[in-house]
Amino acid sequence: MAPLDQLPGLDGRLARQLGFLMEADRLKGVLRGSRIADGSRRENTAEHSWHLALFALVLREWAVGDVDVWRVVQMLLLHDLVEVECGDTPLFDADAADTQAGLEEAAADIVFGHLPSDQAGALRALWAEFEEARTPDAKFAKALDRLQPILLNHAVGGGTWADYAVDEGRERALTGRIADGAPALWGVAQAVFADAVARGWLRPVPGTMP
Amino acid sequence: MAPLDQLPGLDGRLARQLGFLMEADRLKGVLRGSRIADGSRRENTAEHSWHLALFALVLREWAVGDVDVWRVVQMLLLHDLVEVECGDTPLFDADAADTQAGLEEAAADIVFGHLPSDQAGALRALWAEFEEARTPDAKFAKALDRLQPILLNHAVGGGTWADYAVDEGRERALTGRIADGAPALWGVAQAVFADAVARGWLRPVPGTMP
Repeated sequence: MAPLDQLPGLDGRLARQLGFLMEADRLKGVLRGSRIADGSRRENTAEHSWHLALFALVLREWAVGDVDVWRVVQMLLLHDLVEVECGDTPLFDADAADTQAGLEEAAADIVFGHLPSDQAGALRALWAEFEEARTPDAKFAKALDRLQPILLNHAVGGGTWADYAVDEGRERALTGRIADGAPALWGVAQAVFADAVARGWLRPVPGTMP
Repeated sequence: MAPLDQLPGLDGRLARQLGFLMEADRLKGVLRGSRIADGSRRENTAEHSWHLALFALVLREWAVGDVDVWRVVQMLLLHDLVEVECGDTPLFDADAADTQAGLEEAAADIVFGHLPSDQAGALRALWAEFEEARTPDAKFAKALDRLQPILLNHAVGGGTWADYAVDEGRERALTGRIADGAPALWGVAQAVFADAVARGWLRPVPGTMP
């Protein structure tokens, strides 16, 4: 790849912005656990981020509180960008989750550091707000990030639930924050879980019958 | 795939919205002519749409006129959604371009028709505004949609320029609208063209020397 910042006559600020955008392209090569809905392959993080932004645009009316959907969309466009440096950590991988936060902070230094400093600060603040999940905007964004893989697992008949031998109790514990950001969408998740258990795609809680 | 709208107890409006979002998932399987920046494979339209939304977020200061970047991002998230019904038409395919507009209108009826009617109208209007490319928001969105494949072709050393034996004159004619939405980005495109011609990745205008 020929770096754009070696082109003659390019404004320095613009060259940094373009350099960031070309680094971001690497997100198209980061694979997640989830399959796309036709089951043909794993989803990459760039297309996942687009899908979530579309979720926000269409499902905004189900958010709790006074949500600014433009801020939500910005968070979702940026929320996994650190994965160009540190890869994706599946929700069900408890060992990796312990070290994930530190790795992602270091990755954020690199990734946002490609931008001019004013933009690096503003976009990193949005990423950090998403990670902390305390504001209404971030809670809604997190709810969508938890809901989408549930719908994909249902679409493909198991997906990461089968890969990680997940039962409904563990799945509810890991995705229950959907209720904080969008109670109606938590209702959807529960309907999907019940259907998935009935079809044998998600294990019932041990000791219960589907 | 088990349709979500057969789940018991799901609100009808919400079921339509989720149905639209799962149909939209098919955009991940629509391949474009462009390669991703590492050259490993063709880009799909979903990840392309994410990349453009990020372009808008980062490059907004280079837009001409009074641009509402949130409207620009919405257009970019939606701009190629019709391709789930009619596929991608490469910029260099002149035969296909003649029939493309009619096919895309019919596709838009289907795609936006999955949504509740109020949302279908609002989102389709944004798509139509992008297609018409007359407002400052749409001109900036179009400029980004033309710029990004230029940067990818440069990154991979030819890409669709080589596939379609494109020369610099034709490429300038097909992408010149970048200047309407963002003159500074047209300057970037010109610097990239000059470098690509010098490296032999883009044919010089016939009768000229690189």
